[in-house]
Amino acid sequence: MTGRLPSRPPGRPKGGSESRAEIEAAALAAFGAQGYDGVTIRAVAARAGVDPALVHDYFGTKERLFAAVVGFPMLPSTVAPALLAGDPDTLGERLVRLMLSVWSEPEGRDRALAVLRSATTQDQAAALLREFVGRELLGRIAPVLPGPDPRLRMAAASSQIVGLAFLRYGGRREPLASASDAEVVALIAPVVQRHLFG
Amino acid sequence: MTGRLPSRPPGRPKGGSESRAEIEAAALAAFGAQGYDGVTIRAVAARAGVDPALVHDYFGTKERLFAAVVGFPMLPSTVAPALLAGDPDTLGERLVRLMLSVWSEPEGRDRALAVLRSATTQDQAAALLREFVGRELLGRIAPVLPGPDPRLRMAAASSQIVGLAFLRYGGRREPLASASDAEVVALIAPVVQRHLFG
Repeated sequence: MTGRLPSRPPGRPKGGSESRAEIEAAALAAFGAQGYDGVTIRAVAARAGVDPALVHDYFGTKERLFAAVVGFPMLPSTVAPALLAGDPDTLGERLVRLMLSVWSEPEGRDRALAVLRSATTQDQAAALLREFVGRELLGRIAPVLPGPDPRLRMAAASSQIVGLAFLRYGGRREPLASASDAEVVALIAPVVQRHLFG
Repeated sequence: MTGRLPSRPPGRPKGGSESRAEIEAAALAAFGAQGYDGVTIRAVAARAGVDPALVHDYFGTKERLFAAVVGFPMLPSTVAPALLAGDPDTLGERLVRLMLSVWSEPEGRDRALAVLRSATTQDQAAALLREFVGRELLGRIAPVLPGPDPRLRMAAASSQIVGLAFLRYGGRREPLASASDAEVVALIAPVVQRHLFG
């Protein structure tokens, strides 16, 4: 369950790299101006001067379009059902393993590090990511969490997972950087589980 | 217990801003070339072409010199004794409160955000910070932690604290960004305590 983006989504039309580049540029501008929730495929198509069907053909959903243009290293609509399918008692472990699987391969790591960097250095990028992650990933997981404030639970769990990624891969802090995935799971998963359900 | 740096350390000589700027430039170059552990006050003085006593007069210790030139938002030698003085059962809480106190005032927040950003975007800065934090802060706390691998405990606790800072202040993720300090302590301190002693 890596949930990473295929580099060429199925059904992508042949050729037309100019239209594709125009759509990507229009999408970046639209997301930047209106946020994730405020953008529609139709609005991106209008901005790019193409038919909405072409945007659909190239990118599928708005989620996929966004992930493609910002280089988000996974598709929430793909990973969320896999996260939620198993035993709730091990959801924390599955979240940690998902993070490790994204960061363990070079392409996922480069993308994830770029996303982390832009979220640290650009307020607008941080806001946009927040909206995307909130809508597409956390919004799918929150309904299974107990208590009055599932968003706070998800944010606390995210803080542990993001901090782990930051130290293990960004800052290369030992002994976290050299620890095996199994050691990291043993160390971090119970804490993430506690944030989610404790 | 904020442990923040006074902007003018006591005993600083009057005038001589040129020498001070030369010492700072020499210190940055020396730390960049040799790492934190590899640098001495004497080596910085030689690089700046001044007497080591002048470096001492301006900055005091190597720790203080480093914190001044990189803008590190607190002095480990000041905060560590305060962290360790209390009940070990609430060390996690004191660590979280320390982080909140550094980030809650504009100057500390700007410095901490700058440090976080440079650690995310520059490998050399990350390595240097890792060495400084390891030597001056974690090295002081590790001896009180149980078990065979106190460094792993500190790294795990750091991952939770850094991730919290990243989401609450860097990414402004709700509801963490708007939560009160008391709510954040209630949410995060038990987890940090568990990483340290659990």
